Amino acid sequence: MASCGMIEYEDANAEVRAVYDDIMATRKTDWINNFWKSLAHDPVTLRRTWESVKEIMSPGELDALTKEMVYLAVSATNQCGYCIASHTAAARKAGMTDRMLGELLAVVGMANETNRLASGYQVEIDSRFRVLDWGA
Amino acid sequence: MASCGMIEYEDANAEVRAVYDDIMATRKTDWINNFWKSLAHDPVTLRRTWESVKEIMSPGELDALTKEMVYLAVSATNQCGYCIASHTAAARKAGMTDRMLGELLAVVGMANETNRLASGYQVEIDSRFRVLDWGA
Amino acid sequence: MASCGMIEYEDANAEVRAVYDDIMATRKTDWINNFWKSLAHDPVTLRRTWESVKEIMSPGELDALTKEMVYLAVSATNQCGYCIASHTAAARKAGMTDRMLGELLAVVGMANETNRLASGYQVEIDSRFRVLDWGA
Amino acid sequence: MASCGMIEYEDANAEVRAVYDDIMATRKTDWINNFWKSLAHDPVTLRRTWESVKEIMSPGELDALTKEMVYLAVSATNQCGYCIASHTAAARKAGMTDRMLGELLAVVGMANETNRLASGYQVEIDSRFRVLDWGA
Amino acid sequence: MASCGMIEYEDANAEVRAVYDDIMATRKTDWINNFWKSLAHDPVTLRRTWESVKEIMSPGELDALTKEMVYLAVSATNQCGYCIASHTAAARKAGMTDRMLGELLAVVGMANETNRLASGYQVEIDSRFRVLDWGA
Amino acid sequence: MASCGMIEYEDANAEVRAVYDDIMATRKTDWINNFWKSLAHDPVTLRRTWESVKEIMSPGELDALTKEMVYLAVSATNQCGYCIASHTAAARKAGMTDRMLGELLAVVGMANETNRLASGYQVEIDSRFRVLDWGA
Repeated sequence: MASCGMIEYEDANAEVRAVYDDIMATRKTDWINNFWKSLAHDPVTLRRTWESVKEIMSPGELDALTKEMVYLAVSATNQCGYCIASHTAAARKAGMTDRMLGELLAVVGMANETNRLASGYQVEIDSRFRVLDWGA
Repeated sequence: MASCGMIEYEDANAEVRAVYDDIMATRKTDWINNFWKSLAHDPVTLRRTWESVKEIMSPGELDALTKEMVYLAVSATNQCGYCIASHTAAARKAGMTDRMLGELLAVVGMANETNRLASGYQVEIDSRFRVLDWGA
Repeated sequence: MASCGMIEYEDANAEVRAVYDDIMATRKTDWINNFWKSLAHDPVTLRRTWESVKEIMSPGELDALTKEMVYLAVSATNQCGYCIASHTAAARKAGMTDRMLGELLAVVGMANETNRLASGYQVEIDSRFRVLDWGA
Repeated sequence: MASCGMIEYEDANAEVRAVYDDIMATRKTDWINNFWKSLAHDPVTLRRTWESVKEIMSPGELDALTKEMVYLAVSATNQCGYCIASHTAAARKAGMTDRMLGELLAVVGMANETNRLASGYQVEIDSRFRVLDWGA
Repeated sequence: MASCGMIEYEDANAEVRAVYDDIMATRKTDWINNFWKSLAHDPVTLRRTWESVKEIMSPGELDALTKEMVYLAVSATNQCGYCIASHTAAARKAGMTDRMLGELLAVVGMANETNRLASGYQVEIDSRFRVLDWGA
Repeated sequence: MASCGMIEYEDANAEVRAVYDDIMATRKTDWINNFWKSLAHDPVTLRRTWESVKEIMSPGELDALTKEMVYLAVSATNQCGYCIASHTAAARKAGMTDRMLGELLAVVGMANETNRLASGYQVEIDSRFRVLDWGA
């Protein structure tokens, strides 16, 4: 039976099941977390969101662990309880140790502090920082 | 002469100069960016903030580049113009390429999207994610 | 008996009861939700907030449903648990279907993503967008 | 010649041009705004973001104007200068009048206020609001 | 002649002028800042917002300076450039010294840091803090 | 026995105990709240954060109560549940009455509203507000 507000595999239609199957295959796991089971109420958003996440989070110039830690840094900044819990778990699975988590949260905390100091002091951007220099 | 709202080295007292000197020595550079010259109005905050940033940003389990990219991810999430400009520059100096920046911002954007989807759909935290398992 | 932290109708003074009565009459309902019962600790804020909400949320150029969906979009962006729950209920009561909710949250998620991409990429405002053109 | 930090059509490769062409065709316009010309540094993100925006913003249960106003509400809440400017223009093009803009911003302002009152007063979610009742 | 996007006194209708007059009388000043001249496009929002600000910011249990500093603290947290500039000026007018501003921003910065540490570490609320104890 | 995710005094090493002892001595209390017991997983962050908080929150030009109310204003703006609960308790201990709390949250709510109105209306900063006038 479906949980309230979430669509379980056995209650899902073919379109939703195809996404669930791809999530499990990609992540080499046999379960689907509540985020996707909630999104499944809107199969178009479920599919698009999963495909975007899959493309973005696959290793590229940045490895999977770095990407998961960045995801966690954003979630902690936004104070999204669900996302902090799920991406702490995901980052640990990708190799984040306790000490790495401690250092990561220290940077997140400091950045949130200095962001407000820079704004509160109305600091003007240094002309040296205005050069964007995208690939020459 | 001091710029409006900022304290230049030649106008700074001994306490502020000591921090400026340490910033330049630590960063192997010969200039001070506007953030510190603005904070210098409050020497206690200048010193404490610099010492915290210095401790937090020095390489540990996470290397300097990863830390800079996390700092930039937080700043982009908070939409702090000054911090985005300064930490994009700092991350590039630490080795971030155009492609790494592109991947970083893609993760930042996606995390900001799914944070709101998780909140908007009122997703309950999976019991598996509630185990925090700090170092046994 | 009053719940902890909230003021029930039977424990309210005349000033608070007058607001509760107007809320129930305006909304054609016979109960008061926890938000107002919490604000009732400060009758001045209770009255002012209710009168502002009543004025702002009454149909005008935008109909009641559109206004409720905008309220929900803001609440999801701010990740306010209480407000997401109460305004999802209010929007449904005003006619929001499952599919409309799905589309609404998709826009909210996307806007949160592109807001950070625009900031992270330090995109300059196009001159065409600078023309505000209030009522010709 | 390309503007600093942006990729103009004549400097774009085939992949980027294909996206630019689709943007102009979909929007029935002959120019590309700075957001896309900045994203073009990362063609994968450019393509994915455009395709997502195109899918999400096309009329469905919610019409194009409602979607644009929701986008603007989120951008105003996040205080993204670029996005406020571009989506105010887009919403006007879709039919938003001065009075609709006034009402929209009034709702956005109020929601931001009550979001913090609900959080500050630590209001508990009413049990009636906990029923999610996705499609009966 | 009216500035682009703002309504000057000489171009305002009677309803808007009445609010402008009350702002100048209340603040014992002879000019109107851009915020109100922008809101004047929507006279209903102009009047309601001014009346709310007037009621909220008048001295009560908290004096005018404390209220202005709290307003600035919120604006710095939200990184609203306009509001930081205007409320720094207002707080200075109400008596805020350089050292008070320095201490204020230090608290704002620290609170923004520990807010994210509390969220990132998923800290559970102590049972002692759950007692709200509104007026015995 | 240690609670899950927190380090109790009897399980703490000497470094952590020294911080706990200083917290209790400074606050004239005999218990440690969950925030510090969670940070204790990273003794460096625990020590630095405590020393910063201790320095910032000690009375200066602003008294202890004002600082606690500013801390609460930021926490309510960020909607950090833990921080709202702990700093409401701390502010009450420092002398905040029910009426002061009501006025504080009214300012916080209003500032959050006008911050978005200023952004949404794209209000330009008045030239009078651009003068920063740090101590002549």
